Amino acid sequence: MTSPTHGSLLADLPAPGADEDFRPLFANGAVRIERIVSHHHASPPGFWYEQTDDEWVMLVSGAATLAFDDGRELPLAPGDWALLPAGCRHRVAQTAAATVWLAVHARHPDT
Amino acid sequence: MTSPTHGSLLADLPAPGADEDFRPLFANGAVRIERIVSHHHASPPGFWYEQTDDEWVMLVSGAATLAFDDGRELPLAPGDWALLPAGCRHRVAQTAAATVWLAVHARHPDT
Repeated sequence: MTSPTHGSLLADLPAPGADEDFRPLFANGAVRIERIVSHHHASPPGFWYEQTDDEWVMLVSGAATLAFDDGRELPLAPGDWALLPAGCRHRVAQTAAATVWLAVHARHPDT
Repeated sequence: MTSPTHGSLLADLPAPGADEDFRPLFANGAVRIERIVSHHHASPPGFWYEQTDDEWVMLVSGAATLAFDDGRELPLAPGDWALLPAGCRHRVAQTAAATVWLAVHARHPDT
C-alpha cells in the first residue's frame, strides 16, 4: 500500500449522545490511532483506565481534565498532550461540549 | 514508569529559521511521536521522502500542502490528517508561517 489516505479530525462530529464516540483512523501492528469525541462525558466515579499499552493523547478542541490515582488532576486545552504510560491509572474527570481527542495507542515494548 | 508527562504542541514555538524544527515528544519500541514546526518551508525540489515506517501526520495549526510522486497534491488545514504508508513517496510542497505538525512514526509490521 503506497497511497495516502486522509481526513479531518474536526469533520463529521457526531451529535451529542449517551456515550463517547470512538473512530479508528489508522492501525498497524505497532500502533492504533483513534479520534474520541466527548460531550460533557466523564469516566464513571471510581472507574480507572489501566492499560497494557502506552497511550499518548492530545486535545484537539474543547476542554477536558484527566485525573490520576494519586489525586493529581491535569486540565487540558487544545494543543495540550499527555503521555499515559502502560499501567498509569487514569480517568476522565470532565469534558466540555464537542471535545475532540486524538489518541495514539502504542504497543508497549514489554508486552 | 507510571507517571504522566505532558506539554503543549503550541507552546515554545521556535523563531523562524532556516530549517524546520523537530521536537521529540514520545518514543517507545513501537512508535515515535514528534512535533514539527515549519515556517514557509518546503522540501527541496526533486527531493522525496520514502520511509520504511508508516507515518501518520496531522496539521495542528497553519497550512501546508503535501505532494506525491503521481502528481497529486493534498492541501491540509488544522485538524486534517494524512497517512503516509511505508514506501509512499511524498514531499512538503509548501507551508505557511508557524505551521505545527504532529507526526507519528509507527514501525511497519514487515520491518
